[in-house]
Amino acid sequence: MWNRGAENFIGCDTPYDEAKTVIFGAPFDSTASYRPGARFGSRAIRAESYGIETYSPYLDRDLTDIAVFDGGELELCIGDAGIALAQIEDCAEEILREGKRPVMLGGEHLVTLGALRALARRSPDLHIIHFDAHADLRDEYLGAKLSHATVMRRAWELLGDGRIHQFGIRSGERDEFAFAAAHTALRKFGFGGLTETVKALKDKSVYFTFDLDVLDPSIFPGTGTPEAGGVDFSALLAAILTIAPLNIVGLDMVELAPSLDHSGVSTAVACKLLREILLAIG
Amino acid sequence: MWNRGAENFIGCDTPYDEAKTVIFGAPFDSTASYRPGARFGSRAIRAESYGIETYSPYLDRDLTDIAVFDGGELELCIGDAGIALAQIEDCAEEILREGKRPVMLGGEHLVTLGALRALARRSPDLHIIHFDAHADLRDEYLGAKLSHATVMRRAWELLGDGRIHQFGIRSGERDEFAFAAAHTALRKFGFGGLTETVKALKDKSVYFTFDLDVLDPSIFPGTGTPEAGGVDFSALLAAILTIAPLNIVGLDMVELAPSLDHSGVSTAVACKLLREILLAIG
Amino acid sequence: MWNRGAENFIGCDTPYDEAKTVIFGAPFDSTASYRPGARFGSRAIRAESYGIETYSPYLDRDLTDIAVFDGGELELCIGDAGIALAQIEDCAEEILREGKRPVMLGGEHLVTLGALRALARRSPDLHIIHFDAHADLRDEYLGAKLSHATVMRRAWELLGDGRIHQFGIRSGERDEFAFAAAHTALRKFGFGGLTETVKALKDKSVYFTFDLDVLDPSIFPGTGTPEAGGVDFSALLAAILTIAPLNIVGLDMVELAPSLDHSGVSTAVACKLLREILLAIG
Amino acid sequence: MWNRGAENFIGCDTPYDEAKTVIFGAPFDSTASYRPGARFGSRAIRAESYGIETYSPYLDRDLTDIAVFDGGELELCIGDAGIALAQIEDCAEEILREGKRPVMLGGEHLVTLGALRALARRSPDLHIIHFDAHADLRDEYLGAKLSHATVMRRAWELLGDGRIHQFGIRSGERDEFAFAAAHTALRKFGFGGLTETVKALKDKSVYFTFDLDVLDPSIFPGTGTPEAGGVDFSALLAAILTIAPLNIVGLDMVELAPSLDHSGVSTAVACKLLREILLAIG
Amino acid sequence: MWNRGAENFIGCDTPYDEAKTVIFGAPFDSTASYRPGARFGSRAIRAESYGIETYSPYLDRDLTDIAVFDGGELELCIGDAGIALAQIEDCAEEILREGKRPVMLGGEHLVTLGALRALARRSPDLHIIHFDAHADLRDEYLGAKLSHATVMRRAWELLGDGRIHQFGIRSGERDEFAFAAAHTALRKFGFGGLTETVKALKDKSVYFTFDLDVLDPSIFPGTGTPEAGGVDFSALLAAILTIAPLNIVGLDMVELAPSLDHSGVSTAVACKLLREILLAIG
Amino acid sequence: MWNRGAENFIGCDTPYDEAKTVIFGAPFDSTASYRPGARFGSRAIRAESYGIETYSPYLDRDLTDIAVFDGGELELCIGDAGIALAQIEDCAEEILREGKRPVMLGGEHLVTLGALRALARRSPDLHIIHFDAHADLRDEYLGAKLSHATVMRRAWELLGDGRIHQFGIRSGERDEFAFAAAHTALRKFGFGGLTETVKALKDKSVYFTFDLDVLDPSIFPGTGTPEAGGVDFSALLAAILTIAPLNIVGLDMVELAPSLDHSGVSTAVACKLLREILLAIG
Repeated sequence: MWNRGAENFIGCDTPYDEAKTVIFGAPFDSTASYRPGARFGSRAIRAESYGIETYSPYLDRDLTDIAVFDGGELELCIGDAGIALAQIEDCAEEILREGKRPVMLGGEHLVTLGALRALARRSPDLHIIHFDAHADLRDEYLGAKLSHATVMRRAWELLGDGRIHQFGIRSGERDEFAFAAAHTALRKFGFGGLTETVKALKDKSVYFTFDLDVLDPSIFPGTGTPEAGGVDFSALLAAILTIAPLNIVGLDMVELAPSLDHSGVSTAVACKLLREILLAIG
Repeated sequence: MWNRGAENFIGCDTPYDEAKTVIFGAPFDSTASYRPGARFGSRAIRAESYGIETYSPYLDRDLTDIAVFDGGELELCIGDAGIALAQIEDCAEEILREGKRPVMLGGEHLVTLGALRALARRSPDLHIIHFDAHADLRDEYLGAKLSHATVMRRAWELLGDGRIHQFGIRSGERDEFAFAAAHTALRKFGFGGLTETVKALKDKSVYFTFDLDVLDPSIFPGTGTPEAGGVDFSALLAAILTIAPLNIVGLDMVELAPSLDHSGVSTAVACKLLREILLAIG
Repeated sequence: MWNRGAENFIGCDTPYDEAKTVIFGAPFDSTASYRPGARFGSRAIRAESYGIETYSPYLDRDLTDIAVFDGGELELCIGDAGIALAQIEDCAEEILREGKRPVMLGGEHLVTLGALRALARRSPDLHIIHFDAHADLRDEYLGAKLSHATVMRRAWELLGDGRIHQFGIRSGERDEFAFAAAHTALRKFGFGGLTETVKALKDKSVYFTFDLDVLDPSIFPGTGTPEAGGVDFSALLAAILTIAPLNIVGLDMVELAPSLDHSGVSTAVACKLLREILLAIG
Repeated sequence: MWNRGAENFIGCDTPYDEAKTVIFGAPFDSTASYRPGARFGSRAIRAESYGIETYSPYLDRDLTDIAVFDGGELELCIGDAGIALAQIEDCAEEILREGKRPVMLGGEHLVTLGALRALARRSPDLHIIHFDAHADLRDEYLGAKLSHATVMRRAWELLGDGRIHQFGIRSGERDEFAFAAAHTALRKFGFGGLTETVKALKDKSVYFTFDLDVLDPSIFPGTGTPEAGGVDFSALLAAILTIAPLNIVGLDMVELAPSLDHSGVSTAVACKLLREILLAIG
Repeated sequence: MWNRGAENFIGCDTPYDEAKTVIFGAPFDSTASYRPGARFGSRAIRAESYGIETYSPYLDRDLTDIAVFDGGELELCIGDAGIALAQIEDCAEEILREGKRPVMLGGEHLVTLGALRALARRSPDLHIIHFDAHADLRDEYLGAKLSHATVMRRAWELLGDGRIHQFGIRSGERDEFAFAAAHTALRKFGFGGLTETVKALKDKSVYFTFDLDVLDPSIFPGTGTPEAGGVDFSALLAAILTIAPLNIVGLDMVELAPSLDHSGVSTAVACKLLREILLAIG
Repeated sequence: MWNRGAENFIGCDTPYDEAKTVIFGAPFDSTASYRPGARFGSRAIRAESYGIETYSPYLDRDLTDIAVFDGGELELCIGDAGIALAQIEDCAEEILREGKRPVMLGGEHLVTLGALRALARRSPDLHIIHFDAHADLRDEYLGAKLSHATVMRRAWELLGDGRIHQFGIRSGERDEFAFAAAHTALRKFGFGGLTETVKALKDKSVYFTFDLDVLDPSIFPGTGTPEAGGVDFSALLAAILTIAPLNIVGLDMVELAPSLDHSGVSTAVACKLLREILLAIG
């Protein structure tokens, strides 16, 4: 009798043992530099997912066709980034150990580092595809080494030169762009060069880290640091379909701050994109 | 590993078989006369309950001390009140059949009628204690017999004269007050006479229907038809403790429309009141 | 002395007897599947219309040049879709009987069915041009036959195969797209094929049902089920001008839920589009 | 067929010629010192009035028992206070000339001055009862003589010493309180002394100017300059009933800024108070 | 020790004497015809500027490379447009006298007239480049000669025929477009012809008046009179770069009303555009 | 010419050297357990302070009579509580070293610990008066020792038994109330016993830590964890005046989260209370 439908992302109710993909929420935003609220992102995506359909007319596929388990929310240490990242790393590690693919919903972008640590251990050839408005390459932010403004710098320390492929970047300090020129592959403003990148990575393990603020704030205002001049929904969807054939061993979607957009559009956009990603990597 | 805490009202995770009280949501607001949104009330109460404690310093009791199961949300027919009421009645009937007490979270006030039908069958001596800003005694509203503005009139048809005890009423048509004078026990504005009512009902079965808009809109703005001049939180809490010793065979809490109060205070107030009620009748 | 300007849509103050077109509001949203609020759409369009001009620089025409009467709001039965549809049908019937063209402002999309019934009786050759994000072709929704998710299915039952021409559709269940393949002419995502459709319908009576959520939510967030990937304002305006030369015997504009967009942009967009439509069909 | 109910305050549809009281809106807020928006107050009161009943359980009277015409909104010169005040004065003058009583809905408090000028000419014995959080006794504000912060000073220039009776005042500059000590009767914080004032004015003509921000912002947040420590709804209602027997030759209710309170409570409170005032002065 | 960073626009902390450009706020909106709130625009731009970087990846320049002083807010006479304009004129005059370039942040569009008066005296060859959704060419608005709807008409009276170059215009009365055809150079909808205009003005003094509502409301909802069909961010940025090489002797950016956009996107867009403009004209 | 008024709390522009009291903001909220946003509290209080007067009719004193310097905002390490507390401690230490009294504006409640550390070193007899809805006595929260839910426990470790005097407490775990019974003086719900406490502390150094959520959420909704049943404005003002004669060597006001209250009332209340506190301890 009891309707438990709201407890998982729509259509993602495969039992854990049968699932190939595992969704979990990482509700953490303690290092948000400007406006916090991303801690409520994963919960909102799950709760509002019943406003969309399980079927995609873009891909002609349905979430009921694939095997996804939604594990709900991690209970993370608010206020101490080090502890929270270790908790995330443990969770990703356990999912990987059982041969499943982790799909993490943020939270702020720093949470990526926890999942990356688990993945980097298992996939020595790991590359990162990074969609974002911001370079996130600072060495520290207001005295903190662990921050959503430094997460790609920490990722670089983990993986080294040439492993990070950044797209859509349109904000950062001068030093971050200089760092990128030396150490990462950074494309400004859009998805120029994505096809070539995909070709080059076709035999690699890939982690896809997707900061939703790569979208233009006209369609995605609900984020802590909105940045005009972003990509539109169609371009983003096309980019996702472009990378989907790669060997994506894990991914995340971060930086939805639902309370910043009372219309609910930002959350609805995130839900739709999650559906398309799950179906595309199926 | 998975944290499922957000799936039930805080502290209400007793398994169904062991529970004496069963919470369920009735997310229906199709007849809302003015501003809809109460359909999201029960869901918001559950989701935001982790913002309060399980312990009450008023009663020195803790939700972990009592046995409550939270069944989640009913999936009701939106747009057809007759079907939705039958679905609610079935749910209440099943809970009662197993000897448990139903606690229904609205939704709009019309949902009360579904639960009442199940209870009236089993308790021929049923009386209603009704806290509300509005008399809800119209015979019809804009041509509809089933409406949140007519629910107490329908309840009277079910139970007859002298069974409905109304408190806090401060809005209605002239005809509704005339009807009340003839057929119900209506107290305007506050809880005058409540002690006497409790004394008179001490051997009866009682259904408690609690429209949250009995509260003053200063503390509870998140409702479809806010009405100034209501009771304050302390008076309401005292009234709840006054009726708690009665044989309350079922109850509901209705008319929270969370999106009308961006501050979240209304939802937090509803959460706190639900905790106090559960502990008081525990 | 008294300024009654706010009582009608700006520039639409022709007396009823002299008017060729009659606007009326159908403030109903009881079947809204997700987020209600469309009942306030027509009222908001009228109230906020004084924020735009009567003159269109796109068409070089002015609302003061044409003869439109604005009848205000119908008083519909909230909570009972069957009664409400009959009330709408009566209103449309009366307008048609006097040789005028009805322009209905929703309200949710189900209201279309009421007007359609009146028009289908009078125009046996009636075709429908349908702009929408959603197919609206379910057979039932949560047990209800009458729902804004089923309205085009009900319309098909009324008119039969080949009469419904759908554009901009980007959401629905797999079954709805299958149904459309068999029974309607459905174009996904945009206005591809519209010119051909207009050519084919040039001798027919046409009802234009316009769900505003065909627009991308970046420009129209104020609607119950926003769906990313929609058409932009210019494409929509062009599409409207494309169909304007047809014999449009009635039309509606539905699904503005003004309270979901605090910025007021959605309402302003609806006002501007209503002006352009009125001037285009003149 | 057409429902024109939304065009007037609920229950106030007596034809002009038969009415004894005339409501009109003065949508002006150009001098608002802090947060504008009061220009939408009168319109919101009218539009939202259908959310309350015409019957008052406090007074056991109904708006349908009395004869009130609602003239709608004046079209005032935005940006030039001098012109706008002259427009208001003309309107009040015309209403008075026909032996009716003007009830003006603001708008900001400066609009009072326009009505006062008309009334002072006709009633040489005019006294003012002023409910407000602010003294409004500055001589100028940022260089402007005409401002909602100076309106009572301008009123004093019109009427002289001993004619202005201020209640509820809890904000002002030191100089304003000094001015009041010399020239007006000012009661801080509440309604102390109101009964004596009413007794003293029983043979006088009285203008009642009612700034809604005299209410505590807990129950009335929707105003430009909210000021904690205000009176509650019950105290205010009692005060209104206390002055109602006086010879009130005109009145106004000002400073509702509806967009500052998304919950709609402030507008609902204003509607309810207007109903009670109209019924009390009958 | 004290962090005064929030007191100026990010990166604009050059001392007055060394600065070549001076920013100041003109917080005035008394003549706003529809929805006020622009008075808070300049303050919000300053306060929220720390959410963006000082470095532009579009121009590869940094605000720390150039010499800008931010003078904060003028204290203007609210409610009397004549006095306020004189105050603005004095401020602009003083900045010009010291050989610096004024950059004024509105406020509503009428503030432009104050700065223009100072500039027109010093630059007899002054031309205006005007980006806006609205023609602003009325002769009066509701009886007022000074209004944000008349500001370009007043500018024309000051400068004469052929001096005003309008782009992006998509709203106005029929008469305004007729006036423009005779007296200004008006381009509808976008930036067509801008390159030719820049070529023609290459030896002139130019004042750039930038009404932010030229942007489409999807990316800039926070303005009093949003108008669909506007230019997007990329087109606007390109247009700004196109005019930057001209001899821009002063400029303004007006009509941000931050409270109309709770997401904060509009303010963030204005901040980013101000950075790009300052760097482009550097 | 430049108006720098918005840079300090209204009326608090005494130069640092002459000031006896120093205000500073501590914009930190990384450990907020539920809804973040308090980091914007201090900035909002300063920015909105020009909406109130400098004069208090309660105390008949004016901020211009006393000597307060407002140092603006500290730039704190977001995301690392340990670093942030050290930064706060340094600031407080420096103020104390120069013989001035620190008045810290939060931020979340954890910031209190930084100031306390500096004060406890200098005042071995330090007692704390604590107004709050929450006991804040947990030993850890979600694994973190430094949290706004543990701040009074950390304070107790610093000062020992019998030094902490808590008022207004109405939320906490059972264990917290047990801890309080053994180690602090805790009064539930209101200010009972405050007069006795003041008498007992008359020769002591006192730190006053004021969590604004002690207020009822009807008047103060803008806070992360609103808790019904709080004190009203008058009771709070009276309590402040009661403790004002003590030797208050430092104080803070915390937990305003302005974005949670769109009406701005919460910020206005905080401004008014800060004025009264400054004048009372003058």
